[in-house]
Amino acid sequence: MSYLSTQSYKGTRDYYPQDKLLQNYIFATWRRVAESYGYEEYMTPLLESFDLFAAKTGQEIVNEQTYSFTDRGDRQVVIRPEMTPGVSRMVAARRQEMAYPARLYSIANFMRYERPQKGREREFWQMNVDLFGVEGLEADIEIISMADAIMKAFGATEKMFTIKVNSRTLIDVMMCDYLELDVMQAALMIKLFDRKDKMSHEEFRDAAADIFDDGKATEGLGRIAKLVGAKTMQELPKLVRESKPVQDVQQLFDQLRLRGTHSAVFDITLMRGFDYYTDVVFEVFDLHPDNRRAMFGGGRYDGLVSLFGVDTVPTVGMAPGATMMEEFLTTHKLVPKLRPATEAYMLVLGDKTLPAAQSLATRLRAEGVRVAVDITGRKLDKQLKSAIKLNVPFLLFVGETEIAEDRYTVKFTAEASEHKMSFERLVATIHDHRVQDDEAAVNRLFDV
Amino acid sequence: MSYLSTQSYKGTRDYYPQDKLLQNYIFATWRRVAESYGYEEYMTPLLESFDLFAAKTGQEIVNEQTYSFTDRGDRQVVIRPEMTPGVSRMVAARRQEMAYPARLYSIANFMRYERPQKGREREFWQMNVDLFGVEGLEADIEIISMADAIMKAFGATEKMFTIKVNSRTLIDVMMCDYLELDVMQAALMIKLFDRKDKMSHEEFRDAAADIFDDGKATEGLGRIAKLVGAKTMQELPKLVRESKPVQDVQQLFDQLRLRGTHSAVFDITLMRGFDYYTDVVFEVFDLHPDNRRAMFGGGRYDGLVSLFGVDTVPTVGMAPGATMMEEFLTTHKLVPKLRPATEAYMLVLGDKTLPAAQSLATRLRAEGVRVAVDITGRKLDKQLKSAIKLNVPFLLFVGETEIAEDRYTVKFTAEASEHKMSFERLVATIHDHRVQDDEAAVNRLFDV
Repeated sequence: MSYLSTQSYKGTRDYYPQDKLLQNYIFATWRRVAESYGYEEYMTPLLESFDLFAAKTGQEIVNEQTYSFTDRGDRQVVIRPEMTPGVSRMVAARRQEMAYPARLYSIANFMRYERPQKGREREFWQMNVDLFGVEGLEADIEIISMADAIMKAFGATEKMFTIKVNSRTLIDVMMCDYLELDVMQAALMIKLFDRKDKMSHEEFRDAAADIFDDGKATEGLGRIAKLVGAKTMQELPKLVRESKPVQDVQQLFDQLRLRGTHSAVFDITLMRGFDYYTDVVFEVFDLHPDNRRAMFGGGRYDGLVSLFGVDTVPTVGMAPGATMMEEFLTTHKLVPKLRPATEAYMLVLGDKTLPAAQSLATRLRAEGVRVAVDITGRKLDKQLKSAIKLNVPFLLFVGETEIAEDRYTVKFTAEASEHKMSFERLVATIHDHRVQDDEAAVNRLFDV
Repeated sequence: MSYLSTQSYKGTRDYYPQDKLLQNYIFATWRRVAESYGYEEYMTPLLESFDLFAAKTGQEIVNEQTYSFTDRGDRQVVIRPEMTPGVSRMVAARRQEMAYPARLYSIANFMRYERPQKGREREFWQMNVDLFGVEGLEADIEIISMADAIMKAFGATEKMFTIKVNSRTLIDVMMCDYLELDVMQAALMIKLFDRKDKMSHEEFRDAAADIFDDGKATEGLGRIAKLVGAKTMQELPKLVRESKPVQDVQQLFDQLRLRGTHSAVFDITLMRGFDYYTDVVFEVFDLHPDNRRAMFGGGRYDGLVSLFGVDTVPTVGMAPGATMMEEFLTTHKLVPKLRPATEAYMLVLGDKTLPAAQSLATRLRAEGVRVAVDITGRKLDKQLKSAIKLNVPFLLFVGETEIAEDRYTVKFTAEASEHKMSFERLVATIHDHRVQDDEAAVNRLFDV
């Protein structure tokens, strides 16, 4: 017979304990920030009806990137490629009963059939944070503040990232009132702005000129130059500057600064997800010279819940992803030293010691210590080799003498020191070590 | 246009925050027990190649119950219906580098196309715990002890559940040496034993008689009666009782009792997963009169890793499921009072108080308090209604006076008491409350 392949499915990863530790660190940090703002966890099913995504998700994703198929009962289903349709469905189902503002988060896996590349996988994990039921700017401020808090919780400083902010309604003012485009022309121009960074100046200019009505291109291009040249909102042309959307965005920045979020900047070229977002949009951007790129984003999408036939629920959300976050941490050397959950590895010496060693392990577990027992009966050097590979902080050597005396030889691997100590002192030593670890973690989170 | 349905996909559940809290309690309890024994978390991808399951999983599951389909690149894939093939693949891929014993656990979702019914869902969550690399009985003892520890960590007593134990090698002795069946007959007899509880005595007897060679049925049925009549291993016929497999199982029970696991009982009719398990098998069984049923099981499966073309790795594992666990907790009234993650809900009084309230929230978060701010600007009664629906333990009332004095009106909802206190006292009060909660959780885990 032929053997099975040990390869994982294309574009997906196996998480060995060391990889999972890092992913869990990312999840725990996300979770801690989200919960510190009062968000509660929820979960949707892995599969959703195809209709749910056909209605809302961008056509490229639905037609080319979903894992969709027909189930054994002839239902057309899709492995979720994103969370917002699912969570909107849940909110719509309990539109009346829920408490508002509804603050919801989830950490889940998603699948898209894409060409696998750096930072992009077919199965990916992300947190979704959504605030339902608040129309005003306070909701946008909260979500953008949290994006900033998440980055800082990982130890990032404001030199390492920026949050680009724009607004759909502001763009509408620019396109319709200032550039005097109709809806179709505006849509084309938005798409063009979105691709601007990937084009030469000349390509952009020619494509933009083509969008205007005959005879209006020259003036139009002049106006575009003024828009793109504006590095702050104050530099925008008067008609745009004095519009309500710009004043809203200005207020958003004022409020963010007041609350210590200085990483947000206005970026008129940010056109992220305009099929979908209805007002403020933002994108967290890595500033590292080797890795300049969009990491994750969010914004306001007020229309989704009403697709289920209930009253509109204003919503602002965002979705940081684990793979991008991992790359950011690696590039900026922010990955902390991660220890396995296991605190002690018990090396058992002598043929008849195992039952007593197991009793000791039971006593340690009753004190909350996480302990693995070497139950192989191998020679000490082989047991030691396993313990070292596992990177466990404390090694306990248990032989007949130790059992008889109820005193144990303990090696703290970080210091290569070895002590003989009582059971009580052993428990206290391991607990102290854990408290220090926890404190370091909390400091990392809030020392911003 | 027609509206989208708010229904989740058939056989799956939406987890609203209250549901997710209970699921997270189950996950956290599993995780705590697994980690207390030195198990480390891993994760496999959601999709695996179809071949992986075709090779090993029971034919019924593969042909009738998998969510399998062809991807856009013409690969035949399957949404994982179980974890063991995936984790075996991961171990095989690093057969040489891994430290043994390798103690691995995961908590993940799976899908099977089954008729949805009580306790059985198309998408289900389970923990997988596997111990790789130990040939001896110590591995079986460890996994069965953990099954017992998991039940007790949820507050179950030995009156509420039992762990039925049997062994594949013991059954082989019974079938081949004692009943003198050939391999084909033995396979049929095992299937028959497995269905025994669902048949009448007469149906079982007639079906059993058909399996024996001509003229051997009468004697054979007599022997089966002796086997089934044995309530302990001592009552087994001498030939069986003195075989090595029975002596091993006897030693297993002795060791389990020595370590305080009294819930395990020998059950000769347990034939769980014999396509697959190679030696000891067990099944945790709910003893509640309204809910007598198998909850989860496990056993030794030594052959799987070698299907990937590497040397055999002896393995013992088990997989408790969240839905069955939830039903067990509900039936036995073991569901604890679960609080949301949010500790404080800030009610903001007056039009101009919000910025100061937000500063207070930032200070509280810096002290590790999880606080939601009501940013709606609604009247107090509406804010209060949301706070109560959310079931948050502390309500903070923040108006102009409170801000000016830096003293806050705090209502502890469990006691309906209301106090005015300084920022420092407020932080201390919330922290104390959390410590009590944590201690209660730890006591629940280890007070067994």
